[in-house]
Amino acid sequence: MAAPSAPYGDVTTQGASTNIAWHHASVDRAARAQRRGHRSAILWFTGLSGSGKSTLANAVNAALFEQGLACYVLDGDNIRHGLCKDLGFSDADREENIRRIGEVSKLFLDAGVVVLTAFVSPFKADRDRARALVAAGDFIEIHCAADLDVCEQRDTKGLYAKARAGEIKDFTGISSPYEAPEAPELRVDTGSQTLEQSVELVLEHLRSAGIIPQAG
Amino acid sequence: MAAPSAPYGDVTTQGASTNIAWHHASVDRAARAQRRGHRSAILWFTGLSGSGKSTLANAVNAALFEQGLACYVLDGDNIRHGLCKDLGFSDADREENIRRIGEVSKLFLDAGVVVLTAFVSPFKADRDRARALVAAGDFIEIHCAADLDVCEQRDTKGLYAKARAGEIKDFTGISSPYEAPEAPELRVDTGSQTLEQSVELVLEHLRSAGIIPQAG
Repeated sequence: MAAPSAPYGDVTTQGASTNIAWHHASVDRAARAQRRGHRSAILWFTGLSGSGKSTLANAVNAALFEQGLACYVLDGDNIRHGLCKDLGFSDADREENIRRIGEVSKLFLDAGVVVLTAFVSPFKADRDRARALVAAGDFIEIHCAADLDVCEQRDTKGLYAKARAGEIKDFTGISSPYEAPEAPELRVDTGSQTLEQSVELVLEHLRSAGIIPQAG
Repeated sequence: MAAPSAPYGDVTTQGASTNIAWHHASVDRAARAQRRGHRSAILWFTGLSGSGKSTLANAVNAALFEQGLACYVLDGDNIRHGLCKDLGFSDADREENIRRIGEVSKLFLDAGVVVLTAFVSPFKADRDRARALVAAGDFIEIHCAADLDVCEQRDTKGLYAKARAGEIKDFTGISSPYEAPEAPELRVDTGSQTLEQSVELVLEHLRSAGIIPQAG
């Protein structure tokens, strides 16, 4: 046991059950990937309201979890009422909302977690800023490309009806533009494919990109 | 295989390699804890600059990682230049800084990760707001209780000298108060103990609280 007067940070490896700690004073992403058996990545789902972003992200997350991978979904449910509850829907606040989501995603990436974000994120500039926070290959943009008429017909949350009635201003696709990704890593036709087909497309992309192991 | 015209979210379990996904449409914290073999928690290290918060948090993190647990450190290095880079050091900005750290910690908690935060967090009200975000038992306040004179003597970053010279305003312990926790879950004498002893104290607390397994 080191003398209690030893300077803090001046560490011995004698006698302590925790001396293993000193071999990795800082746990980095590579160590986490080696331990977990998979890389981390940001899966950035973007698309119109009702296009199935959150449904698809949660289904992919469940599939990854079943395979024993570290994964987590960021969506309106856990962001808008927490980290971003001080933000409204002005242009500046929407931009700040996406900025924070990008930064939090980067933290999860660093923590070795496959993080899945499910936000409309209609503006290319905002998505590109999130992409620029991390290295090439760490940001996988997934366009949930259901057509507007399909999304509006579903209207799972009744928001399109309200937007058409003028009760919601600046609603993406109705009264505010959606800038579709020009070259996303993956485009999924969530308008006509089944959820199963969409999940398999995403998983196959992650396998071929070397992020998750090949299916056993 | 479901017909392509099946409504999104109307899921079959036939024929798809990913049908496992549908059994856990939403992966919750309990499922993560069961899978990982440990609970998640927020370890909130608080103390003066130079008290050893970040050193201790990183050493505990390394020990947890060696045991195969999911863990991650939030500190100035990955927060102030990212998520909170828009914030300065006014009272309002300091409060918002701690608020965001609390919210991000809550996300990691939900993701099944033992998250360790290492910030001075001098004000009781700010710490208590972070505590109030989560359930009892999920927030473990750890006071790194090195005396001011010890911290100032170390002055690892040269900040005390600058504060004494008036080059830094509102420096905690010199020109701004530090409100020590009255009843933290754990108080560690990081002024006289060795780092090894401090790490072992934290690990023992986590074991007795049932957050991590007993040492094998």
